[in-house]
Amino acid sequence: AAGTARVTLGVDDDAALLALPADTETAFALDLLVESVHFRRETTSAADLGWKSLAVNVSDLGAMGARPVAAVIGLGLPPTVEAEWVEAFYAELKEAAERYRCAIVGGDTVRSPERVIVAVAVLGAVARGKAITRAGARTGDLVCVTGTLGASAAGLALLAAGEASAEFVAVVRAHTRPEPPVEAGVALAEAGLATAMIDLSDGIASDLGHLARRSGVGASVAAERLPIARVTREAARALGEDPIRWALHGGEDYELLFTVPPERFRAVPPLLAPLGVVATIVGEVGGEGVRLRAPDGSERPLTPAGFRHFDGER
Amino acid sequence: AAGTARVTLGVDDDAALLALPADTETAFALDLLVESVHFRRETTSAADLGWKSLAVNVSDLGAMGARPVAAVIGLGLPPTVEAEWVEAFYAELKEAAERYRCAIVGGDTVRSPERVIVAVAVLGAVARGKAITRAGARTGDLVCVTGTLGASAAGLALLAAGEASAEFVAVVRAHTRPEPPVEAGVALAEAGLATAMIDLSDGIASDLGHLARRSGVGASVAAERLPIARVTREAARALGEDPIRWALHGGEDYELLFTVPPERFRAVPPLLAPLGVVATIVGEVGGEGVRLRAPDGSERPLTPAGFRHFDGER
Repeated sequence: AAGTARVTLGVDDDAALLALPADTETAFALDLLVESVHFRRETTSAADLGWKSLAVNVSDLGAMGARPVAAVIGLGLPPTVEAEWVEAFYAELKEAAERYRCAIVGGDTVRSPERVIVAVAVLGAVARGKAITRAGARTGDLVCVTGTLGASAAGLALLAAGEASAEFVAVVRAHTRPEPPVEAGVALAEAGLATAMIDLSDGIASDLGHLARRSGVGASVAAERLPIARVTREAARALGEDPIRWALHGGEDYELLFTVPPERFRAVPPLLAPLGVVATIVGEVGGEGVRLRAPDGSERPLTPAGFRHFDGER
Repeated sequence: AAGTARVTLGVDDDAALLALPADTETAFALDLLVESVHFRRETTSAADLGWKSLAVNVSDLGAMGARPVAAVIGLGLPPTVEAEWVEAFYAELKEAAERYRCAIVGGDTVRSPERVIVAVAVLGAVARGKAITRAGARTGDLVCVTGTLGASAAGLALLAAGEASAEFVAVVRAHTRPEPPVEAGVALAEAGLATAMIDLSDGIASDLGHLARRSGVGASVAAERLPIARVTREAARALGEDPIRWALHGGEDYELLFTVPPERFRAVPPLLAPLGVVATIVGEVGGEGVRLRAPDGSERPLTPAGFRHFDGER
């Protein structure tokens, strides 16, 4: 990255002021989270919500290959919310901000009649011309993901079933405190390795669809190649669920889905290993539409299954 | 302004990408508006809400001396809101964005159980070192405002009383479709004339307090110098209200409050006249605390009066 971003004026003015690094483009995104739609206060702690509010936003930056620079927070609070809740929320939001080197530079706290509302806007910096959009995938490219899939869905299912025992802490944590591999997105962009990239917020079935549509290509995913952690499979077994379905449709994994020309893939593992990130080839770009390939080679369309992030009103 | 901002990637990716002008700093702000707290759907049309959502945000940029560049919109919609409402909201939001040359580069539309929620984050650009904060006022500076004060409060009071007749259209419009003088803020910053600046969102009593506190100074305002439009005075007469109170405490005027050294004030009118903006000297920086000076020279503390933007739950 060319130079370092600097906050020249933080909170307590009409706007924050930032000196962004020269020769960069600015990535800009916003997420709005509403109680009872995206989370429930009964089941999501203030601390987890604070962490997740920032994490899901920097995930969007990482998926462009942009380094987080700054965030502003809008918080709507019903009168029933206590000061301790707000403190825990901000403490963990700040933890996440430090983890991702994203300065909290301002915000707006307002009343909300019934529901907690969290609006987070983030800015990131990416070297000029190096950003990875969803639109660059080409026929023949490999389809890759970072990390493992379905862990967040497993965690959510365990929490919903009241079975979040100690052996499953890793998947519960994947759901409550996702750690998007933002540095991996930045590295892939700076190295010019990925042709297209998106973060896995809705599940690969849905998100690969977005990427393929924007790139004007089709793509296939091989079911047996989906990286699913052993603890996720064990959670599926314990609950009588299908781990492949979680991996395809579960969402909220906040891993990266990217495409790379096959002759360049060998540069990916040495790039990501120092960051503690593993990339797995799960399919390839080509053909018509987005398909799931079975071990016998047969294919069926892979479409969003309407999986909900949770069973709330939505 | 050094160069022009360019949107290199708009909606429909993980984040928008912007090429900001060289040698600028980036101003970054967010506002969160919640139905029943900041507006009511019964009395605020979708079109007016769309306009105002963008206008109040670019007002924050103008108060730093920053030109609007881009905005992202988060919209939370209850199931009862119809498509026509959303279309009218976005149509007028886009009108405001064009008026202020602010590109709408993305957003997030989500469900909300009961209330419409609008989160707007904006980015602006200001020549490096030229931004005007709230902190630069010095003893002896003149306190100035743009435009007139109290018009928005007059419009709101007329609407609430069901007396928004044709003769009062100007003040009703000041409330429903404020046009913050963003270009005036940019001009004052580029010319290096203002020592401190803030936008009048809560009323001069409150906002001069913010500016004075951040600058570590006191200030006085002369009641008879407050610029109050004739139509605002007529509305006050019609409703039996005090126009001075509206000017001091009414809020939502979205004019600029700024300080300027006395020997430099003569440069202000010729700078702002081409923009159609009039600046009025209303007081001066100095002394202890923020005071209101009566025509007889006596002073009393000028503190926020707890005026509410409207009589809703809050």
